[in-house]
Amino acid sequence: MTVRSRRWSLTLAAEFGHANVTPELEGFVAEAAVETGVLAVHLVGSTGAVTTIEYEAGALADLRRALDTLAPPGGDYAHNARWGDGNGFSHLRSALLKTGIAIPVLQGQLALGTWQQVVAINLDNRSRTRDLVAVVVGASPGDT
Amino acid sequence: MTVRSRRWSLTLAAEFGHANVTPELEGFVAEAAVETGVLAVHLVGSTGAVTTIEYEAGALADLRRALDTLAPPGGDYAHNARWGDGNGFSHLRSALLKTGIAIPVLQGQLALGTWQQVVAINLDNRSRTRDLVAVVVGASPGDT
Amino acid sequence: MTVRSRRWSLTLAAEFGHANVTPELEGFVAEAAVETGVLAVHLVGSTGAVTTIEYEAGALADLRRALDTLAPPGGDYAHNARWGDGNGFSHLRSALLKTGIAIPVLQGQLALGTWQQVVAINLDNRSRTRDLVAVVVGASPGDT
Repeated sequence: MTVRSRRWSLTLAAEFGHANVTPELEGFVAEAAVETGVLAVHLVGSTGAVTTIEYEAGALADLRRALDTLAPPGGDYAHNARWGDGNGFSHLRSALLKTGIAIPVLQGQLALGTWQQVVAINLDNRSRTRDLVAVVVGASPGDT
Repeated sequence: MTVRSRRWSLTLAAEFGHANVTPELEGFVAEAAVETGVLAVHLVGSTGAVTTIEYEAGALADLRRALDTLAPPGGDYAHNARWGDGNGFSHLRSALLKTGIAIPVLQGQLALGTWQQVVAINLDNRSRTRDLVAVVVGASPGDT
Repeated sequence: MTVRSRRWSLTLAAEFGHANVTPELEGFVAEAAVETGVLAVHLVGSTGAVTTIEYEAGALADLRRALDTLAPPGGDYAHNARWGDGNGFSHLRSALLKTGIAIPVLQGQLALGTWQQVVAINLDNRSRTRDLVAVVVGASPGDT
């Protein structure tokens, strides 16, 4: 059995700063040499999100617009009324989208489609530097 | 420690073709003989989703209608403007719902309620044949 | 390799009864002595949810209000028309939010931010006592 972890630091722009983290995750799984297993990836903090999407400008713009409708930046939030930091919409979006996902690993690869990428998103109202963490647990050819 | 994987091919109807995949997942966990562990299940591609629901026509219709409101098929999408494939709503729905879940395994069984099933959904604007993949990692009675 | 499971019984109020289950999960991971791994946590049943949020009254109120808009309790649901139990909105909310998450464990700790807690939510239209289950799989210092 193999267990490996990795941590990356991502600086992402305000409101919908995003990064395609698929290459980092694929490299990590390849180095761990896990043939079959589970990868859990997570953007640490309560104002971010991780999901999968076709990482192209159109789909990303559509997701951003949907979030603008679900939780408008200028809306009226109880979080803002209590704390005055203006990122109530960020917390709401993050709780709805969630900050991580688990992806199966088969034949040494993440089970993603050709047009499917893992995206980390900063939903906060200011630029943030966040930890992206991943753990892979599974079987490697070298396991005894 | 036991690690097992399985892959199924599912042909699902356009827009909201769905399948209750709980029996397949339960059979897979039983064959793997994992007593305690984690199952990760994932519908490969960027226009599908996996979630849990009471798998009955009413709840499914309610979910479909909610998605029609969140991301109408005939809406205006930047993805469609760029790529002309008309499935911008599908990508958006998939990014919001996500394409997989992780479920604990206890006493050899998926930790699901009596009225809770795992559903795979095709959100694309045409029928698709998709891979559903699952990996279970955990402890079996026979592990040394 | 270490695999451990735990089950808690939670009694949660109707419609949006919530509990911060982070201390229970942190205690569980600490007792399992998993240094690096994956925790899967799941609220059993089809009318609940698990996500992360800054567990303070404002952010929770904002999430509740967003769910009230997405799936109003008094809305018209096909599930209610078929079954008459009035919790169609609960099923819909649960399918959208999902009933569990997977969180990486690094250096013996859940990869959560300072202001990020794991919350279990009862979305049903009546108070429910539900099982929260967690499994952690990973490497411990004592593993051979």
